[in-house]
Amino acid sequence: MLNVISTGEAIEEVLNCVQGASTGTEFVSLSACLGRKIAKDIISGEFIPPFSRSTVDGFAVSASDTYGSSESIPAMLTLKGEILMGEKAEEKIKKGECIRISTGGMLPAGADSVVMLEHTQTDFDGLCLVFKAVGPFENVTKKGDDIVPGRMVIKKGTVLSSKHIGILASLGITEIECTKRPVVAVISTGDELVEITEKPADGKIRNINSAMLSALLLENGCDVVDSGIIRDSKAELEKALKIAADESDVILISGGSSAGARDLTAEIINENGSLLFHGISMKPGKPTIFGSCFGKPVFGLPGHPTAAYFVSVRMVLPLLTKLGAVAKGTKKETAVLSCNLPSNHGREEIVCVELENGKATPVFGKSGIVSLLSESDGYVIIDRNCEGLKTNEEVTVNLF
Amino acid sequence: MLNVISTGEAIEEVLNCVQGASTGTEFVSLSACLGRKIAKDIISGEFIPPFSRSTVDGFAVSASDTYGSSESIPAMLTLKGEILMGEKAEEKIKKGECIRISTGGMLPAGADSVVMLEHTQTDFDGLCLVFKAVGPFENVTKKGDDIVPGRMVIKKGTVLSSKHIGILASLGITEIECTKRPVVAVISTGDELVEITEKPADGKIRNINSAMLSALLLENGCDVVDSGIIRDSKAELEKALKIAADESDVILISGGSSAGARDLTAEIINENGSLLFHGISMKPGKPTIFGSCFGKPVFGLPGHPTAAYFVSVRMVLPLLTKLGAVAKGTKKETAVLSCNLPSNHGREEIVCVELENGKATPVFGKSGIVSLLSESDGYVIIDRNCEGLKTNEEVTVNLF
Repeated sequence: MLNVISTGEAIEEVLNCVQGASTGTEFVSLSACLGRKIAKDIISGEFIPPFSRSTVDGFAVSASDTYGSSESIPAMLTLKGEILMGEKAEEKIKKGECIRISTGGMLPAGADSVVMLEHTQTDFDGLCLVFKAVGPFENVTKKGDDIVPGRMVIKKGTVLSSKHIGILASLGITEIECTKRPVVAVISTGDELVEITEKPADGKIRNINSAMLSALLLENGCDVVDSGIIRDSKAELEKALKIAADESDVILISGGSSAGARDLTAEIINENGSLLFHGISMKPGKPTIFGSCFGKPVFGLPGHPTAAYFVSVRMVLPLLTKLGAVAKGTKKETAVLSCNLPSNHGREEIVCVELENGKATPVFGKSGIVSLLSESDGYVIIDRNCEGLKTNEEVTVNLF
Repeated sequence: MLNVISTGEAIEEVLNCVQGASTGTEFVSLSACLGRKIAKDIISGEFIPPFSRSTVDGFAVSASDTYGSSESIPAMLTLKGEILMGEKAEEKIKKGECIRISTGGMLPAGADSVVMLEHTQTDFDGLCLVFKAVGPFENVTKKGDDIVPGRMVIKKGTVLSSKHIGILASLGITEIECTKRPVVAVISTGDELVEITEKPADGKIRNINSAMLSALLLENGCDVVDSGIIRDSKAELEKALKIAADESDVILISGGSSAGARDLTAEIINENGSLLFHGISMKPGKPTIFGSCFGKPVFGLPGHPTAAYFVSVRMVLPLLTKLGAVAKGTKKETAVLSCNLPSNHGREEIVCVELENGKATPVFGKSGIVSLLSESDGYVIIDRNCEGLKTNEEVTVNLF
C-alpha cells in the first residue's frame, strides 16, 4: 500500500533535495553558446569602437572650419588625400584641411566630424567645397561611444541568444563561462522491454520511455546518458544505479509499474541512500518514487509513457532547473472547457486537451496510451481540491 | 543614388524569388529529430499495443466467471499459474480458471479481463477467490487500442517535439524523413575587418557580423557555412560568391556600407544573375541589396551589425522559412510608449525598446552601436506611413 503525498509536498521535497547544489561551470565556444546560461558577468575590457569612426561617406574635417558655410557661400578646404578602409590615418589634418573618408573609416587626428559626400564638391584641383556646416562629432561614432572598459555588458545568469553574439564578438570573447548542463541518466526497467530497433516478440514491447524521456530532457537544457534496459533483478538494478550515479547528476528509472518491481526500486534506494517518498496523489503518476541513492537524486517513474512524461514535467524539470538547466518553458493559453470534467477529489489530475478556437476538449485514453501526448495540443492541471469543472468553465492550458 | 523600394515590396520580391523552391528532404535519426519538420505523414504499420495487456496487478479471467461475485459470495476460480513479464502465455485459460498477471503483462487466450489483486484472495491451495465482478475488457488495454495499422499518427509538416517521440519509438521508427535545413553561406566583406580572435590594429575592427548572423541563422533552423572575410576586391568577391553558390541555398554578404563597396556587390550580382532591388526605405537597413547570383538568392546586407540583424529578421528569415526552415518565432507583447516617437514618414523604422511593467522605452544609439541589441528587450516596427507615436500610445513589441 503506497503512502501517497500531495504533488505540492512532493515538489517541495524534490526541490529541498538539491538545495544549494549546482552542476558547476564550463567554458563554451561562441559558436556553441546559444541557449546557454552565462555563469559570470561579462565585463568589457576594451573601447568599442576602438577608434573614432565615420558613419558616412564624406570628408573628415574640423567642424569649426565649416561654420557659416552654405550653398551660396561654401567653405573651401584643402583636400589632403584619402583614408582607406582598415588603415590608420598617418597624418594629422590641420586647420583648413580635409581628407576623404568612407563609412567606418578611422578619423584622423585633427578631425572631429565628417561632412557627407552629397554636401561637397571636389571639381577643383586639391580643393573641396563644403556646402553645409557640421557640428563637432557629427557623423562620427567616437571611440568608446558604444562600450568602455569596465562596463558590464551581459549580466550573469543571462541565457544567450543571437542578440548577444554581436557584443561578445566585438569584444573578441570566443570562450564564455557558462553553467554546466545537468547530466541525467535514464534507465528503463522491465523484462518485457526490447530496444526500439527490434520487432517485439509476443509479450514484449519496445522501450519507449528511454527515447521519450531523453527527448524531453534534451529539450530542456540537459545532457543525457542512456543507461539502457535493465531486467527486473535487484543485483542488476543496483549495479546500474551505482554506475549512473558516477556518470550523472540525476537519475531517472522508469518502468516497473507492477507492485513488485516498484518495491525493488524503493528497496535499493532505501538501502543505499534515503527514500523520500513512494507514491504521490497525482493522476497519472501515482506510483512515483523519489529519493537519494549513491549520493544522487533518483526518480522512480511509472512505466506508462504518459505518466512518466507528466511526472517528469511536474517534478523532474523543476529539480533540473534548480540545478541550472535552461528549461524550454511552457506557454500557457486560457480556454473554455467544451464539456464537464468530473471531480478527482484528493488527487491532482493532468488532463490532455485538444484546443480549437479557444475551446479545450479533454482527450482521454486508457492507461498506457502513447498517442495521447502526440495528438493533444496541451494539458490542464486540475487541483486536488477541485470539485469538478463544468462546460464553458475557464481553464489554463499548458501548451506542448 | 539608391532607388529605394518599400519594405513591403522588398519582402514580396524576396518571397517571389523562392516561389516553388525547396531544400529537399533527408533522413534524421530519432535522437536528433527534435525541432525538425517531418516531410511525410507518419502512418502506423503496427498494432499498439501489439497484444492485449493488463493495466493492473491481478488475475486474468473470463469476465463471465466473475458475474454476481461479492464480498459475501466470492467467485472461486482455479489458479493456473503466473504470466511473467515479457512472456507469452502458452496455455489458454478455460472456464473457471484464472492466471496471475502483472501490470503490462500479456493476456492469455481465454481471458478477456483482469481482476485487481486487492479484490482477490489466494489463501487456499490452487484456488483464487474473487470478491468483485469485472466486465469484459475491464483493466485491459486491448491489442490496437492505441494505434492500428494504417492510422496517420503524425501529420506531414509537423515540427517534432518530445511529445511525438513516444509514438515514434513505439512504432520502431528510428529514421524520420524531414525537410532539409536550408544552408546559408555568410560572407563578410571589408578591408577593415579582422577575425574575432585577433586584437585589431588601428583602423581595424573585429568581424562581428559573421558570428552574429550565424547565430541568428542557427537559432532559426538553418545550417551555416562561414565563408570568412573577403577583401574589397571584385575578383575576390566574385570568386567567393561562386563558391558559396555551390555550397549553399542562400548567400548573405554583409559589409561594405560605403557606396563604393555596395556598388561592387550590386555589380557582381548584376553581371552573374539579376539584381532585384538596391535600397529599401527601412531604417536601419537602407543600403540593402537583393538578387539572384550564380543561381542562388543573395542578400547584400549593411555592414552595421544592428542593421544587418534587422534586415535579416525582416527579410532573410521569411525567405528561409519559405524554403522550409523552422524559425524560432517571435513572441509579441503589447505595451505603451513611455515617450513620443517622431514620425519617420516614408521609411519603415525599427526601434529597439526596453520593457518594464508594460512600458516600452525606446533605446537609441548611434549608427553601428552593437550593445543596442544586447541591452534591449525587443523592438517595435513603425510603419512607413506613421505620422509619429505619442507617449502612452499602444505598441506591439517583438520580443527578443
